[in-house]
Amino acid sequence: MKHLLSPLDFSVEELDNLMDIAKDIEANPEKYAHACEGKKLATLFYEPSTRTRLSHEAAMINLGGSVLGFSSADSSSASKGESVADTIRVISCFADICAMRHPKEGAAMVASQHATIPVINAGDGGHQHPTQTLTDMLTIRSLKGRLDNMTIGLCGDLKFGRTVHSLIHALVRYPGIRFVLISPEELKLPSYIKNDVLDRQNIPYEEVVRLEDALPDLDILYMTRVQKERFFNEEDYVRMKDFYILDNKKMELAKEDMYILHPLPRVNEIATEVDNDPRAAYFKQVQYGVYIRMALILTLLGIEV
Amino acid sequence: MKHLLSPLDFSVEELDNLMDIAKDIEANPEKYAHACEGKKLATLFYEPSTRTRLSHEAAMINLGGSVLGFSSADSSSASKGESVADTIRVISCFADICAMRHPKEGAAMVASQHATIPVINAGDGGHQHPTQTLTDMLTIRSLKGRLDNMTIGLCGDLKFGRTVHSLIHALVRYPGIRFVLISPEELKLPSYIKNDVLDRQNIPYEEVVRLEDALPDLDILYMTRVQKERFFNEEDYVRMKDFYILDNKKMELAKEDMYILHPLPRVNEIATEVDNDPRAAYFKQVQYGVYIRMALILTLLGIEV
Amino acid sequence: MKHLLSPLDFSVEELDNLMDIAKDIEANPEKYAHACEGKKLATLFYEPSTRTRLSHEAAMINLGGSVLGFSSADSSSASKGESVADTIRVISCFADICAMRHPKEGAAMVASQHATIPVINAGDGGHQHPTQTLTDMLTIRSLKGRLDNMTIGLCGDLKFGRTVHSLIHALVRYPGIRFVLISPEELKLPSYIKNDVLDRQNIPYEEVVRLEDALPDLDILYMTRVQKERFFNEEDYVRMKDFYILDNKKMELAKEDMYILHPLPRVNEIATEVDNDPRAAYFKQVQYGVYIRMALILTLLGIEV
Repeated sequence: MKHLLSPLDFSVEELDNLMDIAKDIEANPEKYAHACEGKKLATLFYEPSTRTRLSHEAAMINLGGSVLGFSSADSSSASKGESVADTIRVISCFADICAMRHPKEGAAMVASQHATIPVINAGDGGHQHPTQTLTDMLTIRSLKGRLDNMTIGLCGDLKFGRTVHSLIHALVRYPGIRFVLISPEELKLPSYIKNDVLDRQNIPYEEVVRLEDALPDLDILYMTRVQKERFFNEEDYVRMKDFYILDNKKMELAKEDMYILHPLPRVNEIATEVDNDPRAAYFKQVQYGVYIRMALILTLLGIEV
Repeated sequence: MKHLLSPLDFSVEELDNLMDIAKDIEANPEKYAHACEGKKLATLFYEPSTRTRLSHEAAMINLGGSVLGFSSADSSSASKGESVADTIRVISCFADICAMRHPKEGAAMVASQHATIPVINAGDGGHQHPTQTLTDMLTIRSLKGRLDNMTIGLCGDLKFGRTVHSLIHALVRYPGIRFVLISPEELKLPSYIKNDVLDRQNIPYEEVVRLEDALPDLDILYMTRVQKERFFNEEDYVRMKDFYILDNKKMELAKEDMYILHPLPRVNEIATEVDNDPRAAYFKQVQYGVYIRMALILTLLGIEV
Repeated sequence: MKHLLSPLDFSVEELDNLMDIAKDIEANPEKYAHACEGKKLATLFYEPSTRTRLSHEAAMINLGGSVLGFSSADSSSASKGESVADTIRVISCFADICAMRHPKEGAAMVASQHATIPVINAGDGGHQHPTQTLTDMLTIRSLKGRLDNMTIGLCGDLKFGRTVHSLIHALVRYPGIRFVLISPEELKLPSYIKNDVLDRQNIPYEEVVRLEDALPDLDILYMTRVQKERFFNEEDYVRMKDFYILDNKKMELAKEDMYILHPLPRVNEIATEVDNDPRAAYFKQVQYGVYIRMALILTLLGIEV
């Protein structure tokens, strides 16, 4: 029984294989239209996340399968005090595979230990969100043709940003990766990631405070939100926030083939005027998210097309 | 790309065509059972509306398609501050067509400007609810065999009643239509509709206060709810409310072939004893609502059967 | 038009037939995979019950049908004051069969009187929960090979436990049934069931306070939760609660072929260490719940495979 709990659950080879399937799905969707006929996906969302939930559901439906589940804890039995372990054993009788979103770290791990069906971790607290990482990787590989030998800018809240941490863990496995970490002092990448992941593997990186200073070098710019409440005081927030808002003026500094990614939802950290820039890839990213989840469902169910 | 934002988005010819498809669906449902196979409808309900949501879902399923979405803003990403424009671009990656209900006027319009899939306005605040109007029109045409040369009674809250306003706009495009506006003084049809729509096009109408006075003349009686909180004082409400409750006794005044419509839900404005009267058409109306939405989905997706 | 409102709506012969279909479904699921193609189940859950809702949905999907509905009253029109009678007439236009969960006793009965589609009572207040009873019966018959000539232990809250009451009503129709009623004084089986059901039909039973005293004799142990708030005082609760917690030590007293059932969710009344005991049948029970609901849907829709 294979699960997806962390982006590192797959080897580089398995990831390559997964992304190859996703690319084939993009090219030949009709080939996959009945691959999961008679199969059921359970979406177990203990906290709402429309995008992530619907992406999994669209993926399963695109494969000819069906979907059941719940979209918030209110409408689930969680309120009756049932353990995740019991719930997943029950769900194993209803579905062939499940995607679980839970506010507690490790919930998907517990589920996988008691499930008789594959479990996809669709986010467990601030811990992991592996299908987002797979989405980010497929997007980069599709747009740039490779995952190695690149300068990746990570911008915004690098302290708490779960998607950023996961992406670093995933990309350091490819050769020639260099990071530019763009954030205010208060929201710098935690030293346990700098020391244990980047330094230990001799991954080059630099830290900058202003997005403008980083832009000219980047092959990929991964934007995230800077939440006001993360700052110690209003003054700092006001002084800094414009550094992390990407607009057309700043885009003039970027390479012609630099792509912008964002895990969404965005608030104002990317001006809407940028949406029309051909380098804006954050909505394409959503589409790639469906393809990679289709590939993931097929792989976890052991279905070959 | 075609959307349905207002009932007037379709010409009279297009509406006729839509209703012809709906009638063919009613007669030959099995012909349409696989017409939308592999297609997905997203139901984006930022406020709950079970009837409208399930009617769209039943329509899509009847066509062999699939459904995903959310039934209230709580279980959506709206709470994370995402704009409608961004949400619809995301949803465009998940579905082939969407139906959106939103508390703000113009939300569906904004969505349509950013969508790469057809958008059905399933109600935007007090503004428009075009699939209800299409339902009302198909019901009248099916029961009476025509949409012209008729006396239509509109009863209840004509001031705020969105369905009533839309129906007036839609029906004045047919010849020989005459309205009887039945409401308390406080809830009369707004003068901008009387002046700009009825007077300008020389549509005959009269205003009456008591339902009994209007009933004998009508070919169609369109009932709506009179909400207590619309009245200035309790006294007026108590004095008036019985004028707008349809019961078997009042029905004795009506023609043998006058049909009663109601957008539902009803509270007490139609006594349940009337349900058994063959002229009670408000539950048939629900069924026609499914047929017209099936025709609408096919038309917006450009699928011919 | 056939509905399922109470477990006694079916005769013993009809129940046998239903369980025969369920067993055939278990043995040959693929035979049934398209039996309900083009059919729609509406799940009308006025209060959340994930397990019961998803079990019905999985059943319908396993039969090749589709599902629509709502999972809580918040996202339904109930809040707009629509009566159950009106809602079910509307739903009858959207679906071919429905499963209704409602906090008020008798709601499903009212629905059945106005529906033009079969209504499955998926729980109405503290009153009935017939599909649970069918599930319990199929589980017992599948594991023991029979429904007669057995000693059934019912343990926990026998005063308020709806599933226990229903199971008693259902099993007294089979010969040779004997009950052991295991509960604290405060939560004993109500005398109207003891007198009107057990005594009247000369069904043997005994009442015991401690689970240990009952275990050696039992063929089936049906566990339910003992809720703290049912007790008059904290002292009594603390003194008693361990009597009703099943663990491996107590299981040593039980027969080798005694099976444990539980309607779930459990809180702590069965220690998780018991889950690995081959006699623990409460998760198998969930699976049987899907099979019997598949059989029920087929039967109510009059579909023979």
